[in-house]
Amino acid sequence: MIQSAGFAETGGAGRRLQEDLRRIGEETGLRLWGPNCMGLVDPVHGKILSFVSPAIWDEGLIAGRVSLIVQSGMLSAGFLIDIMTHATMGISKACSIGNKVDVDESDLLQYLIDDAETGVIGLYLESIADGRRFLELCRRCPKPVVVLKGGRSERGARAALSHTASLAGDGAVVRDVLKQAGVVEARDFKQMMDLCRTLAAGPPAGPKGGDRVAVLTFSGAAGIVSADFMESFGLRVADLSPAAHEKLQTVFPEWMPAANPVDLWPAMERHGPDRTWEVAFEAVCGDPAVDAVFFHVFCGGFLGDPDLASFAAAARAAGKPLFGWLLGARAAVEQMQAQALKLGVPLFQEIERAVECMAAALNRPGVAGGVGRPAGDFSPPRLDPEGERLLHRHAGALDEHRSKQILSGAGIPCVEECVVSGEPEIRDAGRRFGYPLVLKGIADGSVHKTEADLVRLGLSSEPAAVAAGRDLIRRLPPGGKVLAQRQVEGRTELIAGVIRDPQFGVCVMCGAGGVLVELLADRVFAAAPLTHSEALACIDRLKCRPLLEGFRGSVPVDRGALADILVRLGRLALAFPRIREIDINPLMTGGGRPIAVDATIVLDEADPAGNSGGPPAA
Amino acid sequence: MIQSAGFAETGGAGRRLQEDLRRIGEETGLRLWGPNCMGLVDPVHGKILSFVSPAIWDEGLIAGRVSLIVQSGMLSAGFLIDIMTHATMGISKACSIGNKVDVDESDLLQYLIDDAETGVIGLYLESIADGRRFLELCRRCPKPVVVLKGGRSERGARAALSHTASLAGDGAVVRDVLKQAGVVEARDFKQMMDLCRTLAAGPPAGPKGGDRVAVLTFSGAAGIVSADFMESFGLRVADLSPAAHEKLQTVFPEWMPAANPVDLWPAMERHGPDRTWEVAFEAVCGDPAVDAVFFHVFCGGFLGDPDLASFAAAARAAGKPLFGWLLGARAAVEQMQAQALKLGVPLFQEIERAVECMAAALNRPGVAGGVGRPAGDFSPPRLDPEGERLLHRHAGALDEHRSKQILSGAGIPCVEECVVSGEPEIRDAGRRFGYPLVLKGIADGSVHKTEADLVRLGLSSEPAAVAAGRDLIRRLPPGGKVLAQRQVEGRTELIAGVIRDPQFGVCVMCGAGGVLVELLADRVFAAAPLTHSEALACIDRLKCRPLLEGFRGSVPVDRGALADILVRLGRLALAFPRIREIDINPLMTGGGRPIAVDATIVLDEADPAGNSGGPPAA
Repeated sequence: MIQSAGFAETGGAGRRLQEDLRRIGEETGLRLWGPNCMGLVDPVHGKILSFVSPAIWDEGLIAGRVSLIVQSGMLSAGFLIDIMTHATMGISKACSIGNKVDVDESDLLQYLIDDAETGVIGLYLESIADGRRFLELCRRCPKPVVVLKGGRSERGARAALSHTASLAGDGAVVRDVLKQAGVVEARDFKQMMDLCRTLAAGPPAGPKGGDRVAVLTFSGAAGIVSADFMESFGLRVADLSPAAHEKLQTVFPEWMPAANPVDLWPAMERHGPDRTWEVAFEAVCGDPAVDAVFFHVFCGGFLGDPDLASFAAAARAAGKPLFGWLLGARAAVEQMQAQALKLGVPLFQEIERAVECMAAALNRPGVAGGVGRPAGDFSPPRLDPEGERLLHRHAGALDEHRSKQILSGAGIPCVEECVVSGEPEIRDAGRRFGYPLVLKGIADGSVHKTEADLVRLGLSSEPAAVAAGRDLIRRLPPGGKVLAQRQVEGRTELIAGVIRDPQFGVCVMCGAGGVLVELLADRVFAAAPLTHSEALACIDRLKCRPLLEGFRGSVPVDRGALADILVRLGRLALAFPRIREIDINPLMTGGGRPIAVDATIVLDEADPAGNSGGPPAA
Repeated sequence: MIQSAGFAETGGAGRRLQEDLRRIGEETGLRLWGPNCMGLVDPVHGKILSFVSPAIWDEGLIAGRVSLIVQSGMLSAGFLIDIMTHATMGISKACSIGNKVDVDESDLLQYLIDDAETGVIGLYLESIADGRRFLELCRRCPKPVVVLKGGRSERGARAALSHTASLAGDGAVVRDVLKQAGVVEARDFKQMMDLCRTLAAGPPAGPKGGDRVAVLTFSGAAGIVSADFMESFGLRVADLSPAAHEKLQTVFPEWMPAANPVDLWPAMERHGPDRTWEVAFEAVCGDPAVDAVFFHVFCGGFLGDPDLASFAAAARAAGKPLFGWLLGARAAVEQMQAQALKLGVPLFQEIERAVECMAAALNRPGVAGGVGRPAGDFSPPRLDPEGERLLHRHAGALDEHRSKQILSGAGIPCVEECVVSGEPEIRDAGRRFGYPLVLKGIADGSVHKTEADLVRLGLSSEPAAVAAGRDLIRRLPPGGKVLAQRQVEGRTELIAGVIRDPQFGVCVMCGAGGVLVELLADRVFAAAPLTHSEALACIDRLKCRPLLEGFRGSVPVDRGALADILVRLGRLALAFPRIREIDINPLMTGGGRPIAVDATIVLDEADPAGNSGGPPAA
């Protein structure tokens, strides 16, 4: 473990020094951790392998079940001190990984997945060394994994590059593929700690889980604001059963019908806080319509401090997760926080944060397709010899027609079309596809047909088509060809495709097309290969989803057929590593069946063996 | 001031008791504050007019420039204790208003606007007693007003009803009209306090204001995450000028070019924290490309505690607002927070909250149209006698044709149309409006023409129009009529209208129509009368705004003409109080000029004098 700085992060000479390290590691088989890191702090076994003076841990390291992997020395040291002295959360292992010359986040993640002392893993990362491996580990990790990824914005990514020479990657891709792998996304440092300590509090639910929450409060206003947040974080305010109402009514004043949020103040005025809390916990813990309990306490003041241990006991006995919001006098608040940490009850000082963490625990995203390596047909598609030849030999963009021939070969439905070279063939196409007909001019190497005025839509008759075809042929450069297509009607436009992400490799993309693409920025990514159910999960995350479900009487889009296209796109790109990009735009869904109307496959500029089979694209 | 509970909030007998109070107040001219409240706490003068035992304030009330108006007794007491013991913020006056039998939030707001000891006003409200008055006060208030409105969600609104018998109102309307009046919206209690204390720290900017922020940090990671948040909250990471770079480079190691966020750690290793901070503050405070400074400190550890007073002095001398994020050992953090409160420097423990509050201070929304009563033409429209008669006498929904005649009379552009009763008139209309022509069947009292299959679009020829007209006449019930309309082409559909909000009265609405309305929930409200510039501000807040600005080569929508429609809608509804609702759907914008294609005006069911002039609508 090399903790010293002065390596790759200092450029020039330091980078050479780090290369030496890497070489020595490879030659000797020694694993190297660092350089430029804070090392490892392990409160469970009281081991501090860190340059940070052990004296600063005097206030006592709190052992717990959260392990951290942090790509920042200063931050991990600073945060450990903050967490420890504020008694925020117990730590199992805090690992600062620095420049990652050898040991990286995936190595440590792998270790922590098997570590019996770790219940939750939180990571702050600026880059991911091996995105594929990291995703696989997250996928098969039964423990919650929380990731804060720095460099989501353009300026943040620029700062990440200068901080740890990290390529932050496309923020949208990172977010989506981590979600696909079941990772909980964090935004800020303390918020990440709050998510970790909440998820560490135990299995999220009793026998059946669920998101129906009872709110027990001393303040009507806090109950109202809690309900507002629960709606926006996707939790339900439980509808209490008649038995719970009846129970509450034994302490409630006559004029006040019990309701959830349960405002306990008037009952406390009559029966005192202790008796009221007891009845309230009995009512909601015994209510089958309640999955979890969110209590509000005020401490250090006129109400007397509530008995947290009895709250925890009641919830544990009922198998219901318990969350709390507290405010009050500082000394009492601190004492209660320390007690809550021991009892394993997540307490928060802001209602919004409490509800956000509660939602993360109760609605913890499962891995689409189940934990572990997903099952699915990941065999490569069988293309015709010409398609195979193009994908092995061509360089740059394939034209629309060739691209769609390959997509068709891979089982992706494409619009009916044919190349026409003169009037008789245009007439044939018109008879075959019907009118209105579409004609497009294909100039080799150019992918911008519309801008070059080479697209003729809605040709309503044979004479119109023949005239348009004649005009297109005249406008095309030598080597150009004309494509005749059946016109596809339909309102809903989608886009779909494949990109090769520098961190995660082949990723499939699906999104809203047409006007919506710029308004909604509605694109969802998933790492390939993806299972049919992962593809369905992608489709469900589209903002334009209501349009796909049969909006205003239109035919609903066949989700299964759409998912199949995404699965096949991923298989195709994985089978042919020279595919750099596939872009289907638009993917029309009129009539419910998705169909590729225009598409481009872009290949690497030259194949590795140097035997490029076609001219480079413009 | 009546602090006891047991009034309207307890129903039946309590409500009668509260009515008695109101009557006594009216008869005697005595102003009444309460009942069911915590009263008033005034730390500046050390006055506690509250049933809460003065003993709990022993830890010392901190005097400051934030005044609070809170519609919740428990919460205001609880929060005061929390704020005081945590030394979070200094208070001028904390007012708990309870059931508001007489003195309400507007009365107190009016007082605090003129109160020299109050710099910022924060309100927690479940209802607004007189929405119009409240808006007017906010509009002309030169001090920042921060409002947390409980009951934004359906469940929250239900809880508000049972808590203080408050009608929470439509969350979207409340949010928009408060924004129109320049109010800062809060979401949560502590977040509201954070906004208040930030805004209380002083005038938001130096000579010219601005949103270009320099980030000074000890942690590259914290700098990256700060930049990520700044982008999402609409602040700019300042591009430092060459002089600032040069200055920083005097302490930076050679291999590290200065950049913003400014990562000071390597410089601190070389020159110590004190010298490094000094140079860093000199560099960014002297840089004309920097409008504000956001510093990160770690305290209670290996870096030594930074000298906050010198940071504050440097920023004050440069006239630049200063904000800080801190973490570290609890005791040192608490000490530094107390010092920051004295120095008037807003310090935060979460980066996201710091950036959010910084954005609220640096981008504080002005009142559209300027502070104070906005200027504008608010005269009532002059309608023809028939229009006036309908608006005074009719009850329920006016049919499409009558509605648009009135809108036209009020100066709102409507599609050309006429009533046709037979074939010759249909032919006339076709000659006048051209083909394709639109025919619609108008059955008295029914506003659902499409569902009743009474709309014929795109009639492309005279025979088609005549046949369609014959069919419609046959299908219509007695008293029905047929409307012939010019067909308006165009892609962008908007909606516009007027509602009568129970809290704020006449509000104008503008939104995206067609498919987008359900996807984007894109509606913006403004209280009428509104100025032309307020109407423009509404249009600028539409999510579909890119579509209006000339999307993909389409003609940009005439914003001035659209704003004029909104202004006129408000004037019309204010002039005729029996108008309950106006609904223009769609408002087409093809060709850039907005034009009402279909519209309905809904009037009160019966006029107050009982002389209703028409049959009630179905």
